Amino acid sequence: MSTDQNKFQAIISHCKEYGFVFPSSEIYDGLSAVYDYGQYGAELKKNIKDYWWKSMTQLHENIVGIDAAIFMHPTTWKASGHVDNFSDPMIDNKDSNKRYRVDHLIEGHAETLSADQAKELLSQMDELLKENDFAGLKTLIESNKIKCTVSGTANWTDVRQFNLMFSTQLGSVTDEANEIYLRPETAQGIFVNFLNVQKTGRMKVPFGIAQIGKAFRNEIVARQFIFRMREFEQMEMQFFVRPGTQKEWYEKWKEERMQWHLSLGTSPAKYQFKDHVKLAHYADAAVDIEFEFPFGFKEVEGIHSRTDFDLKQHQEYSRKKIQYFDTEINQNYVPYVIETSIGLDRMFLLTVCNAYEEEDLSTPEKADSRVVMRFPAKLAPIKLAIFPLTKRDGLPELARELMDDCKQAFYCFYEEKDAIGKRYRRQDAIGTPFCITIDHQTKEDGTVTIRHRDSMEQERIPMSDVKALVLSKII
Amino acid sequence: MSTDQNKFQAIISHCKEYGFVFPSSEIYDGLSAVYDYGQYGAELKKNIKDYWWKSMTQLHENIVGIDAAIFMHPTTWKASGHVDNFSDPMIDNKDSNKRYRVDHLIEGHAETLSADQAKELLSQMDELLKENDFAGLKTLIESNKIKCTVSGTANWTDVRQFNLMFSTQLGSVTDEANEIYLRPETAQGIFVNFLNVQKTGRMKVPFGIAQIGKAFRNEIVARQFIFRMREFEQMEMQFFVRPGTQKEWYEKWKEERMQWHLSLGTSPAKYQFKDHVKLAHYADAAVDIEFEFPFGFKEVEGIHSRTDFDLKQHQEYSRKKIQYFDTEINQNYVPYVIETSIGLDRMFLLTVCNAYEEEDLSTPEKADSRVVMRFPAKLAPIKLAIFPLTKRDGLPELARELMDDCKQAFYCFYEEKDAIGKRYRRQDAIGTPFCITIDHQTKEDGTVTIRHRDSMEQERIPMSDVKALVLSKII
Repeated sequence: MSTDQNKFQAIISHCKEYGFVFPSSEIYDGLSAVYDYGQYGAELKKNIKDYWWKSMTQLHENIVGIDAAIFMHPTTWKASGHVDNFSDPMIDNKDSNKRYRVDHLIEGHAETLSADQAKELLSQMDELLKENDFAGLKTLIESNKIKCTVSGTANWTDVRQFNLMFSTQLGSVTDEANEIYLRPETAQGIFVNFLNVQKTGRMKVPFGIAQIGKAFRNEIVARQFIFRMREFEQMEMQFFVRPGTQKEWYEKWKEERMQWHLSLGTSPAKYQFKDHVKLAHYADAAVDIEFEFPFGFKEVEGIHSRTDFDLKQHQEYSRKKIQYFDTEINQNYVPYVIETSIGLDRMFLLTVCNAYEEEDLSTPEKADSRVVMRFPAKLAPIKLAIFPLTKRDGLPELARELMDDCKQAFYCFYEEKDAIGKRYRRQDAIGTPFCITIDHQTKEDGTVTIRHRDSMEQERIPMSDVKALVLSKII
Repeated sequence: MSTDQNKFQAIISHCKEYGFVFPSSEIYDGLSAVYDYGQYGAELKKNIKDYWWKSMTQLHENIVGIDAAIFMHPTTWKASGHVDNFSDPMIDNKDSNKRYRVDHLIEGHAETLSADQAKELLSQMDELLKENDFAGLKTLIESNKIKCTVSGTANWTDVRQFNLMFSTQLGSVTDEANEIYLRPETAQGIFVNFLNVQKTGRMKVPFGIAQIGKAFRNEIVARQFIFRMREFEQMEMQFFVRPGTQKEWYEKWKEERMQWHLSLGTSPAKYQFKDHVKLAHYADAAVDIEFEFPFGFKEVEGIHSRTDFDLKQHQEYSRKKIQYFDTEINQNYVPYVIETSIGLDRMFLLTVCNAYEEEDLSTPEKADSRVVMRFPAKLAPIKLAIFPLTKRDGLPELARELMDDCKQAFYCFYEEKDAIGKRYRRQDAIGTPFCITIDHQTKEDGTVTIRHRDSMEQERIPMSDVKALVLSKII
C-alpha cells in the first residue's frame, strides 16, 4: 500500500475507534456501503450542516431554505428524466437466466487474476463504463471468457440499463399505481415547490432555495468509505435567475462556493476546479470543486448551470404554468437555474481527512507521537474540555462552576479521571480545540491553564475569561 | 363544523399561505399523507430540532447523540419484532381477488351513507381496530353488506395482517436476500450501536444515546394534516440503566420531559399524561404526553420503560454479547432502557397550533383583526425584522448598518416596501417577535422604534441596544 492508502486506512480506523463513523448495523456484519455517524461524528456532521445552512440562508437575504419529503409524486421522476435515464448497465446469462451488474461480474472475474491483469481489466472496464459503451463492455466480457457462476457458460445477452432509483410501494400492496421512489437527488423537491415558495415568500428573481436532506442511489460501485454511499445527504441550493444572465451568476456562485470552502481555513492547494468535459443534457455549464483526498482529487461539490430544463419539464408534465412575472422588464418567463450541490458526507470526509495528523513529538530522550484532529474550532464536536487536576481539594467544584458558566453557550466536556496528559491526548484525538485545567493555584488567584490543541502550548488566564475566549474562536 | 375544526382548517390554510407547510409534490396534485416544509416551516422545524438536541446532548453530560442510517440490516427488524408484528388488517374478495385494507373498504362504504350512519359505522370500526378484533371486523363488513367494487360480491376471506414497513431492494434486482426496509422507528439504530457508543465513548451506565431522524410507516389511517404521516421524523433518546432501577429513571424522565415542554412557555393546562392501558410486549411501564390539539388531546411524546427486551433480542439474533460491565457492583448485565420518543412533526404542529391566534383588534370606530403566531422567541423562524420607514433620506443605509450588526447572530429580515403597519402584520403572521423601524429621528439621536409582536407595544430604544436585547430573549 502507498503512504496515502495507509493514511486513508488509518483515518477510517480512527473514525471507528473514536466514535465518528461506524459501519451500519455492525453487529449484523454491516450493510454494504451504508454507515452510521457515532457520538462525535453526529456533532461534526451537524456543525457542518449548520455552517452551510447559516451561510446560505441566514446570511443571504435572497435565499430561503425548505425541507421537502423524501417521498415525492412519481411523475416528478418522469419529468426529471430519472425514470428513463438514471441507470447502470447489466447483463443476463441466457442459460441460467441469472442477471449480473456488469461491473460486479467483471470485478468478480478480476479477483481470480493476478494483480497486474486485474488492474488492466478494471481500468478497461472503468473506461467503457464512463463512455456508456455497452457493446464494448459485452466484448470485454466475452474476450475475457467470463462465465456465469451458475450455468458455467459465457452465453450472454446484450448489456442493458438498470435504474439506480430505489422503489417502494405506497399504500395497498396491490395497487400498482402507487409505486414510488426514494428521491435520488434533493433538487427536484426544490423545483416542484418553486411556485409555492416564490409566491408565499414574495421572492423576486434572482433568488435561491436551499435544502439539506437524504437522497438514495442504488450505486453499482459503492466504495471508499463514506465517499460514495447508497444513502447519503446533500446540501443543495437552486438559484433562479433571469434568462440570459446565467453565465454571470454561474461565475459568481463558482467563486462564492470556493470562498466558502476556504473560509474554513483549508489550504487552497488542496482544492481545484474541474470543468465537466461532457455536459449533462440539462446543463449549459458545469464545474466540480475537487478536494485532494488521500485517494486523489475528487468531487466534493458541483456548480451547474441547469438552464430552464427542470422547470420546463415540470410545466409540461404537470400542465401547470411555472413562470415568473418580472416587473422590472414587464415579462413572464421560466427562470434559469444555477445549482450548487455539495455532498454532506463528502464534506464530512474532507473535514476529517484534512484534520487528521499523526504528529511526531519525539525528543532526543524519548519517542512520542499523537494523533490530532485539527478541526476548525467552529466545526469541532466539543469546543472545550474542563479538567480538575485532582478529584479532591474542591477542584471539581471549581471546574463545575466553569462548566455551568459555559455549557449553555457551547459544547463542553468534563473529565476528572486519569493523568492530565492522557486527558489532553484523548481530546486531541477528537479534535477539541481548547482544554482547561483547574489546579490549586486556581483557588488562590482564579487563573486556569488553557491548553491549545494545535500548538500544545499552555498559558494561564483568568477563569472568568474562558467563555469569551472560546466564543471568539467559534462564531 | 365545530369552532375547533374551523380553527384547525384555518391553521392548515395559514401554514400553506405563509410558507410553513405545503402538500408534497403539489403541482402533481400531492402525495397522500406526505408534506413539505416551506421557507418558514423549515426554519421553525430546525429550531425545534436544535432546541431538543441541545437540551438532550449538550446539556446532559451523560447523553450523546448519533445519526444512524435509514437503511439497516434486515435482521434488525426480525430481532425487534417488526417483521412479524408490525402490521395492519386487510381482506381479499374471493371472486375478484382484489385486496383491500379493511379500514379503506369500510370508509369507502361509509361515504355512501348518511352522516349519522357513517359516524356510527366508523366508530364501530375504530373500536374493533383498536382491539385487533379481526373476526369482529369481518362481521362488521358482512353485516353492512359491503361489496367489492370489482366483482360486486360480498364473498370475503378472513381478515389478515398487512405489514406497515416499506421495503425496497438493495443491490441487484434479482438477489432476493437484499430486500431491506425503511426503518419504521429510529430506536433500533441506537440499540444496534449500543456497544460501539458505550465503548468508544467510554460511557458509564446510566447514560443515554439520542437521535433525530426520519422514519417511515405505510399507515392505514394517515390523517389530520402532519399529525400522522407516512414519512415523519422522530427525536428519540434511549437511556440505559442498571436493572432494577428502571422505575425511578422512568419517573425522572417522565418529569423531565414534561418540564422540557413547559420550558417553551406553553400553558400546563394544554398538557396531560396518559398512562398506556395495554402495555407493548417489551414494556413494563409507558405513558404518553398529550397536548390539546384543536382535534382533542393527542400523543406528542411517549416515555417507555422498554426493559432489556431490545438489547436481548439483538444479542440473540446477532450472537454477539451485548453486555455492560458495571465496575461499581462488579457485575455484567444487559442494561434496562427508558425511552423518550417525540414526534418532530407533531411537535411542529403543536407549536403552530399553540401559537396561532386570530386577534380581534376592533375599536368602536373601526373593525380590525390580525393573525399572529405567538411562537416562543427561541423557536421563531425570523427573530428580528428591520424596516426603514422610507426608501430615502439615508434610512435604508442606517437599517443596513443594523442588519450587518445582527445578521451573524440571529436570523434577520429586511424590508423597505409598503406601509409600516402592513409590514408589521406580515411579520405577525410568521411569528417574528421583534420589529425595528428606522425613522428620521434615528438620524438625530440614534434611537429606533422596537415593536413587540405579542403586545403590539412600541418603544424607542438606542439602536446600539437592539442586538443584545434580542439575544437576551432567544438564548
